[in-house]
Amino acid sequence: MARTPHDSFHDLALPLSLEPDRNKGEQIREILELMVRALPPGTLLPSERSLAERYGVARGTARQKIDELVMLGLIRRSSGAGTYVAEPKLQQGTTMASFSEEMRARGLTPSARILSARTRKAGAALADRLGLPAGERVLELRRLRSADGTPIAIEHTYLSARRFPSLARVFRDDMSLYATLRERWDVRVERAVHRVSAVALGEDEAALLDAVPGLPSFLVDRTAWDRSGGVVEWGRSTYRGDFYDLVFEVGA
Amino acid sequence: MARTPHDSFHDLALPLSLEPDRNKGEQIREILELMVRALPPGTLLPSERSLAERYGVARGTARQKIDELVMLGLIRRSSGAGTYVAEPKLQQGTTMASFSEEMRARGLTPSARILSARTRKAGAALADRLGLPAGERVLELRRLRSADGTPIAIEHTYLSARRFPSLARVFRDDMSLYATLRERWDVRVERAVHRVSAVALGEDEAALLDAVPGLPSFLVDRTAWDRSGGVVEWGRSTYRGDFYDLVFEVGA
Repeated sequence: MARTPHDSFHDLALPLSLEPDRNKGEQIREILELMVRALPPGTLLPSERSLAERYGVARGTARQKIDELVMLGLIRRSSGAGTYVAEPKLQQGTTMASFSEEMRARGLTPSARILSARTRKAGAALADRLGLPAGERVLELRRLRSADGTPIAIEHTYLSARRFPSLARVFRDDMSLYATLRERWDVRVERAVHRVSAVALGEDEAALLDAVPGLPSFLVDRTAWDRSGGVVEWGRSTYRGDFYDLVFEVGA
Repeated sequence: MARTPHDSFHDLALPLSLEPDRNKGEQIREILELMVRALPPGTLLPSERSLAERYGVARGTARQKIDELVMLGLIRRSSGAGTYVAEPKLQQGTTMASFSEEMRARGLTPSARILSARTRKAGAALADRLGLPAGERVLELRRLRSADGTPIAIEHTYLSARRFPSLARVFRDDMSLYATLRERWDVRVERAVHRVSAVALGEDEAALLDAVPGLPSFLVDRTAWDRSGGVVEWGRSTYRGDFYDLVFEVGA
């Protein structure tokens, strides 16, 4: 049953008015975050105008705070003019749970489309990252990863073409790279190091991901090793920041 | 001794020309990344124009790729017109090594300036995050963290004002929050969970951090618990993306 703002806001302990001595935008954002935390995904949220009127702030302030949460992926815009509470974001954690497993755990259907697969000579930097001599041939694999049909990541992966000679030929859309390496070459990824940078989506990436250019996102450089300490792959992926959070526990 | 581009580029295995069948911008970026990886911090990099002329690309392409690496913090602009190889970025990992320890390990001097410290009633969302009843008084602490005088993070921290009654009064610039909790209240943070989102710096944050608005950055929500499982603090910090990377190992 679709919940309307009117139904659902009754139960929330929303402030009746803003505190006079605190930043208004900050308080509007807190109110929006409270709704996102307390209401089920899909719940319609109050419009810019009603939010602005109810709390006596400028419409621009309300719009800005809504936009911030849209960029963060906590709120989504519907095809009409409204906004609603987003599904919880996907999480990249520190276990080896793959992209696909993470999505299945959320009840989403993962898919992967191969954008390009070709071999070329590794320049000095790439060869160094893969622990190969410069000039060695590498397979460059570019894939678009989606969840329930929504594109959310572009993956670049590089592997030794000498070590995995037929990979480019046998690899298909929706296949798991690690499962293929395991089954065909008995190569298992034992550990990986992720280096995550904050980036803005470029024009080309945004077009592939059906997102707005400039969307804050994650650039993840990944190096993966097998048991013997050899580099299996080096990769660089771009994850839409409005669909992904990184979550990790920090120990003493 | 200052190294000039002419001196230092001799040794690098830079390509003499671009491969005709690959994206030019991508190759220019690879060449810039190769220089950043191979040359010492502070080394001057070739200008937009010389890069464009040497590799036969549009000046706009060279500029765009330089800008991308400036945003990523791999290259910095000098006060003149030039660019140079940046110092390695700070890393936020998955150990409890504090902000200050991470900086000292890099030979940088950490500092912290208190922007505001005040108590207020917790609304429903904040109280929930701290495991407190709504309406309970909380201390809100806002600090600007710097490395060698360069501001790189804005920290918001919330703690129970009832549990740490004199904290706002005794806490000073450059003091360690966790050390203060340990020494005054015998409270030790045992574990914390970080949730990291990609964001663009807002106007106010950019002004505080002396950065450009829109700079891709990290928003880190942190919950920290003591041994008994009680929440010690909930916080939300913004780290400049051009000074910070997140690095973590992923295990099987």
